[in-house]
Parts: sequence; C-alpha cells; structure tokens
Amino acid sequence: MIIDCHGHYTTAPPALWEWRRRQVAGENPGPLRIPDDQIRESLEGAQLRLQRERGTDLTFFSPRAGSMEHHVGDAQVSAAWSRECNDLIHRVCRLYPQNFAPVCQLPQSPGVAPANCIPELERCVGGLGFIGCNLNPDPSGGWWTSPPLGDRWWYPLYEKLVELEVPAMVHVSSSCNPAFHFTGAHYINADTTAFMQFLSSDLFRDFPTLKFVIPHGGGAVPYHWGRYRGLAQDMQRPPLKELVLDNVFFDTCVYHRPGIELLLKVIPADNILFASEMVGAVRGVDPESGHYYDDTRRYVDAIDWLAAEDRDKIFHRNARRVYPRLLRNLSSPRL
Amino acid sequence: MIIDCHGHYTTAPPALWEWRRRQVAGENPGPLRIPDDQIRESLEGAQLRLQRERGTDLTFFSPRAGSMEHHVGDAQVSAAWSRECNDLIHRVCRLYPQNFAPVCQLPQSPGVAPANCIPELERCVGGLGFIGCNLNPDPSGGWWTSPPLGDRWWYPLYEKLVELEVPAMVHVSSSCNPAFHFTGAHYINADTTAFMQFLSSDLFRDFPTLKFVIPHGGGAVPYHWGRYRGLAQDMQRPPLKELVLDNVFFDTCVYHRPGIELLLKVIPADNILFASEMVGAVRGVDPESGHYYDDTRRYVDAIDWLAAEDRDKIFHRNARRVYPRLLRNLSSPRL
Repeated sequence: MIIDCHGHYTTAPPALWEWRRRQVAGENPGPLRIPDDQIRESLEGAQLRLQRERGTDLTFFSPRAGSMEHHVGDAQVSAAWSRECNDLIHRVCRLYPQNFAPVCQLPQSPGVAPANCIPELERCVGGLGFIGCNLNPDPSGGWWTSPPLGDRWWYPLYEKLVELEVPAMVHVSSSCNPAFHFTGAHYINADTTAFMQFLSSDLFRDFPTLKFVIPHGGGAVPYHWGRYRGLAQDMQRPPLKELVLDNVFFDTCVYHRPGIELLLKVIPADNILFASEMVGAVRGVDPESGHYYDDTRRYVDAIDWLAAEDRDKIFHRNARRVYPRLLRNLSSPRL
Repeated sequence: MIIDCHGHYTTAPPALWEWRRRQVAGENPGPLRIPDDQIRESLEGAQLRLQRERGTDLTFFSPRAGSMEHHVGDAQVSAAWSRECNDLIHRVCRLYPQNFAPVCQLPQSPGVAPANCIPELERCVGGLGFIGCNLNPDPSGGWWTSPPLGDRWWYPLYEKLVELEVPAMVHVSSSCNPAFHFTGAHYINADTTAFMQFLSSDLFRDFPTLKFVIPHGGGAVPYHWGRYRGLAQDMQRPPLKELVLDNVFFDTCVYHRPGIELLLKVIPADNILFASEMVGAVRGVDPESGHYYDDTRRYVDAIDWLAAEDRDKIFHRNARRVYPRLLRNLSSPRL
C-alpha cells in the first residue's frame, strides 16, 4: 500500500473560488452550492487518474495551500473560509473514502492567537473525522510577523493537537511579499525556517508527543544536514536525533531522483513519509525522463539500495504511526 | 591550486567591534587603530592555520557577513562602517597577498537606491584592488522590504559591476526578524530566494555578463533542482541551463559529504566554486568523522567519480573565470 501524505484540492470546482472572490470583495457569498458530480469531475481526471497511473492508494487531502490566504481579511473571514474549504474536503473524502483522508486548514489570522483555531480543529477532527491539519508558521503571507513555532504563543494549539493526537504539516500559503515567489521560495524557505525554529527551541521537551511533518522534502534541511548537526552542536543543543527526530518528519516532495536519494541517505527511514503533492506546484513532464516531475514514486522505486522494510515505512507504515487517527477515524477496507 | 571563494574576517581584532559599538551608540568612534601585529595574530591561529592544515591556498576574503548590518543606522552609518571594514580587508590582503584576495562589503541601506553603493565599490575595486563584492538582497535584515534582484531598482549597480567586471556574492547579514535564525534560516533562505528571483526575471537578458555567486551550496536549490526545472517550464521560461547558468554559480559550503555529492551530481562543474566559509557559521568537529564540518575539501576529495578536469574547475579554474580581476589586480606569484 502507498499513502501519499501531501495532496491539496487544487482542482476544486470554480464555484469555490467564486465564493471566495465574493467573500473577499465584501459581498455576501451565500451558501456554497457544488453538486457531487462537480466534485467527482474535478477529481476523476486529475488526482484519481494520477493515483491509478502511479499506483498510489490513499492521499491525505487538504484545501489548496496557496488559497488559505490567512493574510486576507480578518479572523472572521479566515474562519468562514476555512469552514467552507474543510467542509468541501470532508465531502471529497466521503465520496472517495478509499482514496482520500481529510486534513484541515486552520482559520489562522496575523496577530490573532493560534488558540483561536481550536474550535475549527475540534469540529474537523472530532466531528468530521479529519486526521491532520496544516499549520501556517507565517499567516502574514511572506512578512514573517508571527513568533517562531517554539514560542508559547502557539502552545494552546499544540496542547489541543496533542490531546487530539493530530499531527500538523507546516505549510505556508501564498506570498504577498514580492521578494518571495510562493512555490519557488516561500514554501521552501518556510520549511527550512520551521526546522531551525524547532532546533532552537525546547518545544519537544514541553510536548514530547507533538508531531510535525515538514513538507517539500524538508526545504533545504536534508541537503544541509551537516550544517544543522554542526549548528546544534555549536549551540550546545542535543544531537538532532534526540532533539527533533521523535517529532519531526519529512515528506518526499522532491522532484528529481538525486534529491530523493539524498533525503533517503541522510534522514532515517523512520522520519520520511511518502508524498507527491500532486496536483500541485509543478505540473509538467520532465523532458529528460518523459515522466511527471512530481511522480515521486518513480524516484523512490528506483533506489535499489533501499531496504524493503524501510520502503514500507516510507510508503505507509510511518504515515499510520504519525497520523494515529487514520485507523480510528476511517473505515477504508484497504486499511 | 585550491581557491576558497568564500571567507569572512570573522576573527577581526576586538578594536573593530569596539569601533562599531561606538558608532552604533552615536559616539564618535574616532580613527580605527589596529597594529599589523594584531591583524597577524587574528589570522595566524585561525584562517591561516586552517589553510595550511587543509591544503587550500587562496581565500577570497570579505568583512564578517553577520556584521554588515545594513539595517542598523542610515546610509551614512553604513558607508562609514563599510569603509572601515573594507580598509581592514585591504590591509589583510596586503599583509598576506598569497593567502587572501579582497572582496568588499557594500554600504547598502534599507530603502536607499543600490546606486548609492557605487562610489565605495569603485574605491575598493579601482583603488584598492578588490576583485568581488557581497550584495545583500535584504538590507532590512530579515524583513525583505527590497524589490527582488531582477527589479530595475538594482540596475545602476549592476551596470557598474559589469563595467568593472566584478561578480557579486549574494549574501545577507544578520537577521533582526525573530522568525529567522541567521545562519540556520536567513542565510539559506536568501540563497534560495535569490535564485528564484533570477529564475523569474529577465535580468541576464539585460546583463549577459553579470555574474552572481550563490553561497552555502545555493541554499535549497540543488536539492530541489527538479522543482526549479519544472517551475521554469511551467512558467514557460527557457530551461535553467540557458536561463541562469551563464551567470549564476554555487559555492561548496555544504557541510557533509552527501550534500556535496548531490551538488556535484546535479549542477554542472562549470558552475561550482570551491568554498568553505571558514572560520564561519559552523565551527565544530563532527564526532562522526573526526573532522571539521566546514572542511569541505575533504568531501570534494572523497568523490572518486569526479573527473580531474572538473575538480580543477571547481578548485580554481572557475574562480579565475568568474573573478577576472583576480589575475589583473593581484600579483601573487602562485597565480
């Protein structure tokens, strides 16, 4: 079995984006009406087709990351938008319980305490069977005005995550800072930044069971693993293994084989979760290989020195361990 | 011969930092007085010893990056501080012309046009034999308030760099944004960000001979090379090879062997310049190898599939090509 822990509903029907346009324009968007058929249509030729073609089974599915836009409007706007997006994800997962497991967007807002997200998190996890959430370390959209993730500012939300046994994927949204291209710089920088915030803090001493997935292969971190080991040492912190590897996991959204090879060489197999982020940031076919850049399964499959046991961990065992609600909340016959 | 293209005067005598303290405090720091012996002492047990131990020959040497602090004070403060730092680098390189070649700090200041740096650049290059400069894409120190590097805001400075045949290393300074640890996040993010700014712009159509070195192994870029190739393709830009590889070079400041291997596998040898950044961000000895993390020569030496010709390019030929003033400005018998 292959679980893809990182997929967004990038192909949601136009009615969702029209609802959002109206909301942002200050018009009353009214109730969001999307028939089941439109949902099916939006997925059949995209994520579902790609699952079949690539031989992956279950995708952890969350609202489009670039559209979370926590920086747009205030906390009420963010709450209403998150609710619509999460409800739509819930519908997707009820229509295709074998193909998708739900991960929610949080109604963050710049300057607003993260504790404010707890009701929506509880609604999604407790009420609707969600198994994870996306946490934005920079709800300002590229201005990085929030305290680092190790700050107590975030603690009430972490307490709830621990209580609910829900991991968070660290995922920013679009960038309104012209310095940062969103998928080419902001996403990757956020991954790197979050890791360094974890390294510098005592977060996991305070929350030994809190779990984060850092997407996009961990940003720059595995490539600079020696740098991070050395920085931790210079800062007289414990070795990275003790400091973060019970709590931090990396996905495999790295779109070429040498990158995946480095990730698998450097990071213990226990800390890697298979993912592709399809249909996502990079949609083309690599003319050098003839395959989609984001067909990350091919890169993992091609690594012949990977032990069978480690492959199983990466493809599905770690995902079950990091997302314990997967088995509890869902009734997929494949699990 | 081995040229290390990336070293900072991190070990400068205390009088320099005391001068800076006074300047920032608004006191008159007076003339900076450092005897030659203090300069020798600051280098003999540090950079010079490490050059000898590691068998490297010449280091491109610039003021301490974290202390450029373009965000502190105004343009006058930045100009006076840059002048002192650059003069000290000039003295180092006159004392040890076989060991160091000078690279200058620019007197940038947030919101001030980069053209303002031209007089100091001309003084250093034309008057004092400097061969390169460090360009800070974020003089705000972590708030990223400047236009991207492809913006015309930067063009007058680029015109001068091209005229003088001087490359710029893209290098931020310390971070006053608590989200970004300076050497663990801000430096690496800046490298990634700058590359994506280049990828998104027509800068190198406008300046076909302008050259940038992206330090720290190019941030996250080589690890995510497939992502960047795919993003360029999705954006209908030319292939990266055509788009940036005549103008953009990566150094080897990656502090473990798998990272260096990835860099050398993915990036053409013509675009890689040897560097260690010693004495720099990571100063410890790796307990797993028994060697300094930043002894990057060991990682390059250990790669047995690297062709002798490519090794020569990485160790010194590319540096001579990218920094054409090296031969013109210096009279080192080794060159």
